[in-house]
Amino acid sequence: MSRLDALVFDAYGTLFNVHSVIARCEEFFPGKGQALSQLWRSKQLEYTWLRSLMGRYVDFDRVTADGLKHACQALGLACTAQAQTHLSQAYRTLQPFDDALAALRALSAMDPRPKMAILSNGAPEMLNAVVTHNQLDTVLDHVLSVDEVGIFKPDPRVYQLAVDRLQVASHRIGFVSSNGWDAAGAKAFGFTVFWVNRANAPVEELGVAPDHVLGSLGELPDLLADRSNF
Amino acid sequence: MSRLDALVFDAYGTLFNVHSVIARCEEFFPGKGQALSQLWRSKQLEYTWLRSLMGRYVDFDRVTADGLKHACQALGLACTAQAQTHLSQAYRTLQPFDDALAALRALSAMDPRPKMAILSNGAPEMLNAVVTHNQLDTVLDHVLSVDEVGIFKPDPRVYQLAVDRLQVASHRIGFVSSNGWDAAGAKAFGFTVFWVNRANAPVEELGVAPDHVLGSLGELPDLLADRSNF
Repeated sequence: MSRLDALVFDAYGTLFNVHSVIARCEEFFPGKGQALSQLWRSKQLEYTWLRSLMGRYVDFDRVTADGLKHACQALGLACTAQAQTHLSQAYRTLQPFDDALAALRALSAMDPRPKMAILSNGAPEMLNAVVTHNQLDTVLDHVLSVDEVGIFKPDPRVYQLAVDRLQVASHRIGFVSSNGWDAAGAKAFGFTVFWVNRANAPVEELGVAPDHVLGSLGELPDLLADRSNF
Repeated sequence: MSRLDALVFDAYGTLFNVHSVIARCEEFFPGKGQALSQLWRSKQLEYTWLRSLMGRYVDFDRVTADGLKHACQALGLACTAQAQTHLSQAYRTLQPFDDALAALRALSAMDPRPKMAILSNGAPEMLNAVVTHNQLDTVLDHVLSVDEVGIFKPDPRVYQLAVDRLQVASHRIGFVSSNGWDAAGAKAFGFTVFWVNRANAPVEELGVAPDHVLGSLGELPDLLADRSNF
């Protein structure tokens, strides 16, 4: 296998835990935080796929707010303007997964150092906010948003954006995602794909399989350091 | 509002109850029928959207089998080849909703009679099987499958297929679906949309709203017969 010249990371669900909003949800809707967070995330993703297919792109900030609105209605929760604002803001201060920061620092210290980037559905402003909040701006060379191409993952135009902006061929880009469907989309596009399967979920049946399956991001530095693999 | 020259129906979830497979699921996985049916349906839909965006269309028969496989694995159920075959076959003998057959017959008896069609994600063979099983071939003029255009709903090319094959302008086609996202896709395309909201669900937040919301398909004949509406 050829050497990887760049590592491109998914953000939401891979580096940042979208369910770290549960505590905020609990403040507004006691006892319903987990159910709300799960349905909110489901709807948010559904809406990215549906709007992409409909040709009706709006940015992830809007899709996130729309998903929250629907999830609250479906659960019979009265989502005030205040709750809507506070919860949508929570996406700007998501917590990282326990294994994320140390892994990124270790990867950043490799010699030769690969280019490092985020490629995310997030709108530029909300993405920059969560990256800065977690002090990741120092280890990342690029923070790329689908907003530049006006469609969401897994449309191939999104993955092509990383090739164009990093100026690295697709098979020499290692793409890292915890979202099984994103890993499949990236593999179909031509990246070398690392699926971080923290939840030990079955692979998505989308006709392609990731190149590597990891139990945590913490396994990635050693895997890459072993030159027999790359 | 202009008169409607054609009525185009979604099939799965609108005319035919996808959860009528629960009894079959129970035969193979006692106590798990409902959970399996729900996750199966969710994955089936997800895979139609994801494969469409990835540019990796396979027909609905395959997507249905893939969704079942993933759902079984996620629920820890051992899906034998026999179970897989029997359950996938169940989509060929889905039961109609209680309100569906009488409504279709009443609509078919209207004067002037609108053209009547199904426009579905279903593969042609599985779609024809469930239509014939429910003796709907006599009231439908067309059974249209997305397979002709090689992409799933809500891509606009799917809805355009009805315009092309029925030779009726989009705004003179009444599109009937119980799937809120399908109703949104059809409205974005330009149909006059009837959302049959049997479950009293909140509207999908996709930037468009259906023209009419019905509690059951049984309300459609009277609504259309009242010429003040159309």
